[in-house]
Amino acid sequence: MESIHGGDIYRNRVRTDFSVNVNPLGMPKAVKDALREAADACEKYPDIAAERLKHAVSAMAAVSEEYLLFGNGASELFMAAVHAIRPKKTVIPVPSFYGYEYAANAADGEIIYYSMKEETGFLPGENFTEWLPGDTELLFLANPNNPTGKLLNKAYLRELFRYCKEKNIYVVLDECFMDFCGRDASMLPETGQYENLLLVRAFTKIFAIPGVRLGYMVCSSAPLLAKVGRQIPEWNLSTFAQEAGVVCAAQTAFIEQSVAYVKEERCFLEDGLRRLGIEVFPGEANFLFLRSEKFLYERLLERGVLIRDCQNFRGLSKGYYRIAVKNREENEALLNMIGALN
Amino acid sequence: MESIHGGDIYRNRVRTDFSVNVNPLGMPKAVKDALREAADACEKYPDIAAERLKHAVSAMAAVSEEYLLFGNGASELFMAAVHAIRPKKTVIPVPSFYGYEYAANAADGEIIYYSMKEETGFLPGENFTEWLPGDTELLFLANPNNPTGKLLNKAYLRELFRYCKEKNIYVVLDECFMDFCGRDASMLPETGQYENLLLVRAFTKIFAIPGVRLGYMVCSSAPLLAKVGRQIPEWNLSTFAQEAGVVCAAQTAFIEQSVAYVKEERCFLEDGLRRLGIEVFPGEANFLFLRSEKFLYERLLERGVLIRDCQNFRGLSKGYYRIAVKNREENEALLNMIGALN
Repeated sequence: MESIHGGDIYRNRVRTDFSVNVNPLGMPKAVKDALREAADACEKYPDIAAERLKHAVSAMAAVSEEYLLFGNGASELFMAAVHAIRPKKTVIPVPSFYGYEYAANAADGEIIYYSMKEETGFLPGENFTEWLPGDTELLFLANPNNPTGKLLNKAYLRELFRYCKEKNIYVVLDECFMDFCGRDASMLPETGQYENLLLVRAFTKIFAIPGVRLGYMVCSSAPLLAKVGRQIPEWNLSTFAQEAGVVCAAQTAFIEQSVAYVKEERCFLEDGLRRLGIEVFPGEANFLFLRSEKFLYERLLERGVLIRDCQNFRGLSKGYYRIAVKNREENEALLNMIGALN
Repeated sequence: MESIHGGDIYRNRVRTDFSVNVNPLGMPKAVKDALREAADACEKYPDIAAERLKHAVSAMAAVSEEYLLFGNGASELFMAAVHAIRPKKTVIPVPSFYGYEYAANAADGEIIYYSMKEETGFLPGENFTEWLPGDTELLFLANPNNPTGKLLNKAYLRELFRYCKEKNIYVVLDECFMDFCGRDASMLPETGQYENLLLVRAFTKIFAIPGVRLGYMVCSSAPLLAKVGRQIPEWNLSTFAQEAGVVCAAQTAFIEQSVAYVKEERCFLEDGLRRLGIEVFPGEANFLFLRSEKFLYERLLERGVLIRDCQNFRGLSKGYYRIAVKNREENEALLNMIGALN
């Protein structure tokens, strides 16, 4: 059984890692250059106000600078939201990213899991708001979700956020994989309408820089954002995060190219897996969620290939896997390898 | 009036920064090399367990790996201690680093300030434990202290820690500047005796890498350390922090060289300032604390030199300054510049 997170290349012998969901195009060259140069700048304290970064991300995301709060990765922002709200009851629809549970456990409150069943396409059902306990204070939601890749439509989200606002439920909406779905599916342009919404995004996935640690929160309620900000340590952003972030924010063409590339490769991988008789659940992210009776995790790991065994996701069991969409050569190699398993 | 922290080179026109207290020898070359190389590694997730770093720091600090917890800078560890303990009453002796107050404010408890007066050499007096409110749950203490550079002796600390243990008071002991005082003054070898002690150290000052963000906590109580750890986000350590930290931990000769260099330059700067009629308070760190009626901050800033105006430290007022010990050339230039003020 692997760890609670994918990508444990430090304690496995791995040649190819399909368990981690970063952009198959890798880090843009300009970002790597900025990171190398930042080594010289880090004898100085990073800017505690992150002015240049704030300016750049405000332009990229088309949101006011006042709506932005930066974190040492999205994970810091999830936990800061919990520390600020100290919810007595938190709801997490599952299966989903373990990080919400980890963050919620930093407070003493109760965590309730809502089961998104295979029968309803691993989505929260129409009855979700009826089901939501009346004393819920915080709801975590991922869009698209991980590990399923499922995207919630905006009409559904608008209704849900309105309901939550009415019931004084804070919503943390994790859009860390949204960049791969294109701009239209994001709730970013609508943050101004929901003061109870804390939208979180990361630089990790789309810019392939998990080692840098940079995420941001968008919230239109100044008091709420300030409250969350007070739960974050000073100088939380390294020089590397700030310098890389400024360069990332200008990579518009790279993002468009990535969206197109990932879509093409996802279709290629999806078709190939189906042809091998593997059940693939349709998703919109840079990974695929699938089911197989073939003990894929163990048998691929023997061959130096790491995929994500999803049996330790709350709400799943043996036989579910998540595979990152990588480049054509790697995707083909994986299909060949799976095809050769008996 | 400058900001609550020194070193705001981002919003001041500064040629030489004497307001920030990092090693005047700068970052070791091996560390800079490791940081440049880390740019290539950060397409992968950093090791969530930080195994290599833990191993290296355990050897450097001569403490068991089980006693160690790493933070994205010491500031993350101060706040995590507050989040874990959620003290109803926190005591902070002042003047001291603003970061303790910032961290304590992340909880809703009361903060009580103990005044370390000039008459008693800016140290907590003999009556400190008698003064300590009986319902104190957390005490922040810096050794050596910032901005005064005052070092508390170990006999005093032993008695204080025993007292706090008896009274169930947690102590966060900040030794971020201790590396400049040599090994003998540190309480690091004695952490095993006080389960209520959370000793915090940083890589920032001695290795001159404030832009990297890396600190560590040493605590002999496994449940307490685990409790603090649960308040820290996952993947809080960047690839840069982990790679630099491993290299830093091997820089024994550099540390010794730094201690000797800083001591010599501190004496040089101290003598020079005294000769110019400025009152210097004796201290043991890589900075000097002084008093002058000369409006030093404003007049030096006009000349492109930033020092730390300490009037916004709780417990101080106009006329107190902190000056970093830098290299001989810079220290001489500063003395000449101050000498030329009328």
